[in-house]
Amino acid sequence: MTEIELGITADMHVHLRDGSMCELITPTVREGGVAIAYVMPNLVPPITTKQQVVDYHTKLSKLSPKTTFLMSFYLSKELTPELIEECADLIHGIKCYPAGVTTNSKYGVDPNDFSSFYPLFEVMQKKGIVLNIHGEKPGNKEEDEINVINAEPKFLPALKKLHADFPRLKIILEHCTTSDAVAAVRELNKDYKQGDELYVGATITAHHLYLIIDNWAGNPINFCKPVAKFQKDRAALIDAATSGEPWFFFGSDSAPHPIHAKQTHVGVCAGVYTQSHAIGYVAEVFDKAGKLENLKKFVSDNGVNYYGLSDEILAKHKSESVWLVKRDNQVPEIIGNGDVEVVPFKAGETLKYAIEWR
Amino acid sequence: MTEIELGITADMHVHLRDGSMCELITPTVREGGVAIAYVMPNLVPPITTKQQVVDYHTKLSKLSPKTTFLMSFYLSKELTPELIEECADLIHGIKCYPAGVTTNSKYGVDPNDFSSFYPLFEVMQKKGIVLNIHGEKPGNKEEDEINVINAEPKFLPALKKLHADFPRLKIILEHCTTSDAVAAVRELNKDYKQGDELYVGATITAHHLYLIIDNWAGNPINFCKPVAKFQKDRAALIDAATSGEPWFFFGSDSAPHPIHAKQTHVGVCAGVYTQSHAIGYVAEVFDKAGKLENLKKFVSDNGVNYYGLSDEILAKHKSESVWLVKRDNQVPEIIGNGDVEVVPFKAGETLKYAIEWR
Repeated sequence: MTEIELGITADMHVHLRDGSMCELITPTVREGGVAIAYVMPNLVPPITTKQQVVDYHTKLSKLSPKTTFLMSFYLSKELTPELIEECADLIHGIKCYPAGVTTNSKYGVDPNDFSSFYPLFEVMQKKGIVLNIHGEKPGNKEEDEINVINAEPKFLPALKKLHADFPRLKIILEHCTTSDAVAAVRELNKDYKQGDELYVGATITAHHLYLIIDNWAGNPINFCKPVAKFQKDRAALIDAATSGEPWFFFGSDSAPHPIHAKQTHVGVCAGVYTQSHAIGYVAEVFDKAGKLENLKKFVSDNGVNYYGLSDEILAKHKSESVWLVKRDNQVPEIIGNGDVEVVPFKAGETLKYAIEWR
Repeated sequence: MTEIELGITADMHVHLRDGSMCELITPTVREGGVAIAYVMPNLVPPITTKQQVVDYHTKLSKLSPKTTFLMSFYLSKELTPELIEECADLIHGIKCYPAGVTTNSKYGVDPNDFSSFYPLFEVMQKKGIVLNIHGEKPGNKEEDEINVINAEPKFLPALKKLHADFPRLKIILEHCTTSDAVAAVRELNKDYKQGDELYVGATITAHHLYLIIDNWAGNPINFCKPVAKFQKDRAALIDAATSGEPWFFFGSDSAPHPIHAKQTHVGVCAGVYTQSHAIGYVAEVFDKAGKLENLKKFVSDNGVNYYGLSDEILAKHKSESVWLVKRDNQVPEIIGNGDVEVVPFKAGETLKYAIEWR
């Protein structure tokens, strides 16, 4: 029987929502095999104050005391350099949403105009606070040639410019979905030598290791932003995730929506929910690629190292470890409690790997 | 006030279903401004016998006596050259569905193996019976690089080979969705001179003149097969439709599904329902392109001429004409009778053009 010790696992991109959804979903971080979760700030209203961070962290920790929740701000005009300085020990990053591209992104920014945030980026660079970027170029006007397929590649020049302008700002291109994004992240790290500080990182989800466009065409449950693309893109993502390269690490972008928000003929909410079986989904892809030996790098070490998590944070998790165990792992058709119900990714299917906490 | 006489309008690709859906939808052919409708054979079971053709035609004519219904067979191994000869006056074409690509296509054929149908194509060529092709290459195996975006371009070599093998077989590439398809149809007609018999035709829907991938991502009501593609493709389709070129004509591919088949998180039925406002949708695009003077060619003359409809058929429609009238034309949120309900394309929006029968 295959058993692999994964150590302190980290999912560096989770959506835990609020209200009854939050209560349902937060405990599933641990159930899915994740010790440390980087929490997205796109609540309504978005998280932009110290008090919101403290309150949300308290709430999440109460719902799942053994899990470590890393907190973030939502990049917006309400943030000030002073606030960032003040909160430098409370948050690990600031999430940048281009306006209008995904769930609760209407408060977001225009990536053609990052310059107004440069004073913030200066402080973030100084304090080692990560800029988490949803890397899609918004296109609203009829004459824009932006669409859900090319929005990520069209964003990459903005990523490169940002890195050029702030070479020691830690920037993560979140939930990469294209071979172009994978290539760009490698290109930006081409001079990296072991032991160097890493600046440009990239998260990859579980579901983008499985899906292509055909899988969400007609199946809203697989519809997310950025959308899954083509076979060559999926292959590039699998190659990146399983490569062991230190700039690629796991961020599930698990994004639960109530089932009724998926069962509608217009305005389907974007997001795939993977939290409850997160490590299981990923492990199966690594197994199929013959790269299980690199799984720990992807789901544990690379993310923890990139964020440079403190000994204090890690100490909490030293007493136990996540183990990957090869055994049938059934994904339920639905997760919920009547009050709120979510359909998980690969609902009803049987995964080959489960996790145990030991 | 703009008024344009469109003459005898023809929608050369309609889905009228059976049962209560058929009763609801069939009268809307006329309501949408269409005199002659070419009816698809993908019922369950598909139409492959003389009796089915006669019965279906009788049923449709009873539901809408003023409409002319042109009938078709479903290309399958059950058809024989003898049957085609026998039914040559009853049907106007045979529809080829690559297996598995769209609604009720599981009885379809493998386009890599058209050769087994060559004896049928010989008879069709001789009798002037049209081969209507759903031009998407099926891809089932994991290693196939086929997806919903490239399936039509990847089919085009099969179209070219078929035309080369049967240069006088009338072939229609149905519901073109890509600039590649538009270019291929033009290329195959490059030696055409006015007065020549036309062999390779192409239908274009109303909704593909409006939609790109972003419009069906998250909106199942706009999901159809072939899926709407990119801005450049939509531009090519508008250019083709409004060009007046005789090989491009209207086929709405209006494909009604009950609303519950659109409001589901998995297995959404493919198809956009446009029948009830068909000419209105198309006219608005022509107006915006400044090409209203070519509308009659697209929705009336080109299709009628391509099919070479008999004087007998046309005589039925000589006494009245469809007129395009510029006035607000509200698309309802839903069309139905409680028993069966369908959401029309652009539900709730107001079109700029309506039609009148005079």
